[in-house]
Amino acid sequence: MAGMKRLLLALPLLLPQPATAQEAEPPTPASVVAAAAAEEWVAIPPEDLLVMDLAPDARGRARRVVIQLMPAPFSQPWVENIRTLARAHWWDGTQVYRVVDNWVAQWGAGEDGGEAGFAPHQLPEGVVSPVADYTANDLPDSLRLLVNDLSSAEYPELFDQYSLGTGHWSGWPFATDQEEAWPVHCYGSVGVARDLAPDTGTGAELYAVIGHAPRQLDRNIAVVGRVIEGIEHLSTLPRGTAEAGVYATRAEDTPIMSVRLGNELPDPPRFEYLGTESESFARYVQVRANRNDAFYTVPAGGVDVCNVQVPIRRVPTP
Amino acid sequence: MAGMKRLLLALPLLLPQPATAQEAEPPTPASVVAAAAAEEWVAIPPEDLLVMDLAPDARGRARRVVIQLMPAPFSQPWVENIRTLARAHWWDGTQVYRVVDNWVAQWGAGEDGGEAGFAPHQLPEGVVSPVADYTANDLPDSLRLLVNDLSSAEYPELFDQYSLGTGHWSGWPFATDQEEAWPVHCYGSVGVARDLAPDTGTGAELYAVIGHAPRQLDRNIAVVGRVIEGIEHLSTLPRGTAEAGVYATRAEDTPIMSVRLGNELPDPPRFEYLGTESESFARYVQVRANRNDAFYTVPAGGVDVCNVQVPIRRVPTP
Repeated sequence: MAGMKRLLLALPLLLPQPATAQEAEPPTPASVVAAAAAEEWVAIPPEDLLVMDLAPDARGRARRVVIQLMPAPFSQPWVENIRTLARAHWWDGTQVYRVVDNWVAQWGAGEDGGEAGFAPHQLPEGVVSPVADYTANDLPDSLRLLVNDLSSAEYPELFDQYSLGTGHWSGWPFATDQEEAWPVHCYGSVGVARDLAPDTGTGAELYAVIGHAPRQLDRNIAVVGRVIEGIEHLSTLPRGTAEAGVYATRAEDTPIMSVRLGNELPDPPRFEYLGTESESFARYVQVRANRNDAFYTVPAGGVDVCNVQVPIRRVPTP
Repeated sequence: MAGMKRLLLALPLLLPQPATAQEAEPPTPASVVAAAAAEEWVAIPPEDLLVMDLAPDARGRARRVVIQLMPAPFSQPWVENIRTLARAHWWDGTQVYRVVDNWVAQWGAGEDGGEAGFAPHQLPEGVVSPVADYTANDLPDSLRLLVNDLSSAEYPELFDQYSLGTGHWSGWPFATDQEEAWPVHCYGSVGVARDLAPDTGTGAELYAVIGHAPRQLDRNIAVVGRVIEGIEHLSTLPRGTAEAGVYATRAEDTPIMSVRLGNELPDPPRFEYLGTESESFARYVQVRANRNDAFYTVPAGGVDVCNVQVPIRRVPTP
């Protein structure tokens, strides 16, 4: 290797510099993403965005949180509720009322007033508590293939403590027991708050994960989306001091000015994700699992599903 | 089961309620911790605490962060540097200058001015950059036994993507490749910031993890401790907007008023951890891996090492 390196160093004076020499630095996750082809990126439809504007912060700066909603076949009854609630402008005037360090930030309000003791809110017509079914076995064929591969021990680095296999499909992380698949709780995941009984969540109260992936919630709560921009407006909120991390007084709540579906906004933000079926994404996973760029001396040789953040980027509006 | 339940409901009128009936609720992590015997708790010596007082927040409230330092045989050259720096009151007047969402909050200053471009700080005598050796193979016998057990496939739930086995010893989480063991990066872990070259970190600049466990840093950086109280004073700080999440202006930094070893304080805070060799801790791990209390309908059947937070409690000063 040392001899090869010296040889390459001697050549550029004589020849045009080859592409391989320009790539002498080991790849990083960022360099793989930067090198991805334009056609490997997939646009997120505006109707799959939930745009939440919190009241401005103490210095008057805007606080916008953008959530991407979960695609079929996962959690769709709750996602439909959420679309109905957004169209009814139902969350306008509700609050972020619970923030627990290394756990979740939670907002909205329920028919019964919820943990913060709000006045009961009447839900819009059509919003009901779906049957608690947090997994899908009516999988699309492409996901079915992936599930079978993951469970066949071909990819030992994708096994984890919570499933027989983890992977990415259609831009999202999921886990499987081979028969079924389910979306996983990672940093930024958005789920449906509920009471003890599994059939008590509508989506009127939601939470975002602001700490280490609480994977024990997988298959116990509906994951309905993920924060793709502005998570810091939730993760930096003061932590609640009353029971279960609810704020002790309603004056501590953060008001929600509005929540809209992206397609209801006059100028919706536009995003793309790096297609999880693309070659660049496969390379990205490998590089995340085997960091050997300048900072790293010991590549891990593996990576957990929540440390494979799907690259998402904002694109200019036309 | 339904018949059994009815039978138990009929009995209490006739007999004193047996302990098993009182314990009918499945255990939770909290209930296991609450039931632990007094002798299962282990006091943390004040000299193993690093107490960092940030400037009060905008409302004048105190912000104290308490860090427990890593025990031998792990990371001891850096821990010794940190003791020397604390005794010299070296961090007083330095700042938290970098906060990255789902990553780290970082503070201190280096000889070269560091990422934030501070004036160079002269390090106290005796503080030098240790050789980059982030694992230990001179393991205590009790840890050696645990390492061998973990790597022998007896505990499949403790395998993970980053090692041959994970477990807890002397109150700390670690990972192993059977020959060596090393401390892992979890939420709240404190590590030694460094430049690209592995031998460039002294401990004068430290970071705390404020997001999903960045396990790829294991064996690449010295883990020297963990935040055991006040992590929210770091995790809620505004995120930096300049390169690498450093604050764009020094006015955005959070001043550090003082950093002291616990035994230098007139009235040091006192803490205990639940002994990781205790029966209650073993039960706690099992309950964390198999939640079946009222909220959970699908126990995970496993748990990752960073979701087994070692119970730590404050105890009254005598």
